[in-house]
Amino acid sequence: MVRQERAVHTRRTILSAAAKVFEGRGYQAATISEILTTAGVTKGALYFHFPSKEHLAQGVLHEQDQWLPIPERACKVQELIDTVVLHAYRLQTDSMVRAGVRLSLDQQAHGLDRSGPFARWAEIVRDLLEKARAQGELLPNVVPDETADAMVGAFAGVQAMSQAVCDYQDLLRRISHLLRHILPSVAVPSVLASVDFSESRGETISTELRTLMAEERTAAVG
Amino acid sequence: MVRQERAVHTRRTILSAAAKVFEGRGYQAATISEILTTAGVTKGALYFHFPSKEHLAQGVLHEQDQWLPIPERACKVQELIDTVVLHAYRLQTDSMVRAGVRLSLDQQAHGLDRSGPFARWAEIVRDLLEKARAQGELLPNVVPDETADAMVGAFAGVQAMSQAVCDYQDLLRRISHLLRHILPSVAVPSVLASVDFSESRGETISTELRTLMAEERTAAVG
Repeated sequence: MVRQERAVHTRRTILSAAAKVFEGRGYQAATISEILTTAGVTKGALYFHFPSKEHLAQGVLHEQDQWLPIPERACKVQELIDTVVLHAYRLQTDSMVRAGVRLSLDQQAHGLDRSGPFARWAEIVRDLLEKARAQGELLPNVVPDETADAMVGAFAGVQAMSQAVCDYQDLLRRISHLLRHILPSVAVPSVLASVDFSESRGETISTELRTLMAEERTAAVG
Repeated sequence: MVRQERAVHTRRTILSAAAKVFEGRGYQAATISEILTTAGVTKGALYFHFPSKEHLAQGVLHEQDQWLPIPERACKVQELIDTVVLHAYRLQTDSMVRAGVRLSLDQQAHGLDRSGPFARWAEIVRDLLEKARAQGELLPNVVPDETADAMVGAFAGVQAMSQAVCDYQDLLRRISHLLRHILPSVAVPSVLASVDFSESRGETISTELRTLMAEERTAAVG
């Protein structure tokens, strides 16, 4: 590996180890030395990438919104739905995303600023709502900031409830129900009637993204 | 104090201490010995009331739904709103309620069944929805179980977001916005137009309840 690739690989290894330790112990009880042992890298390498426990936690927190962007949709409300549903799907299937979401809800993480992921997600949702508004997809009384905050907050709780009740098994169903309760206050009826926020949407998008990635790889090789 | 009163008082003292320690440390790192020191009771007294750390945590978890019931309202959707809003108000003002809600979202609390509060709250909401339906207050497509789950999950997340962003200062506003996004999918328009879910509702109900309690005390003395 060339030097830069090795650095990316090491950073990744450390973040995975940090995610595992934070998820098992919570922020407060986690120690750098356990993350070091789990990662199997040198102390120097770890401190080079992350000078403190807080830096490690911010790294993990940041991973949860580093998703493959949804391919653009003609209907922006559908693009919003797909963004939300893909996040739920990744939460079920990607331990790094899970660790990030859990950290952002770790109320014992004193001294760790956990507002970042909430703010970033709210911004992502708000931007999509603004685009939807520009296309006439939203009801006139919608305030994108308020709707974004309500959706991001509600999502965080529905995933926590699904985790507490059945370890995420029913997450996609619960998110589908949540959308069914919120979208009628947001989208105009004609949009509402044409979008898909069914339970199976997560699987559909994930397949779409995998196909796209495979095509890109083929194109790069060919 | 007679023996029974003393026991109630001791139990209360222990639960307050447990709430404080769980809130500061999280479930996993909390120890019975720290709870013992904080409570200032004998080991015998503590184990008499709560034989294990899990019993202590369940005691704290249970406190969050032991609220003064809302006085019955003619409109059941209003009774539901008031129940939700009062919970938010108590979350802002009562450290025991706050500790219970935080414990139920403590994803590092391995071995602690945290589904209880979610299930109990969902039941409370569902019962009120059933009553609202019987009075013709709900839209025909509402499934009370699903709406109750969506509302309880969404509430949990909105409070967590408010805590992470500004330590609960904007909680009542956020809950008011959440209700504005969900209720139009639940209540018929004529009900929607007549209910109050404004930001100031929490304060109104709390004043109402304090007045009721004062009247009851006066009646008991007189």
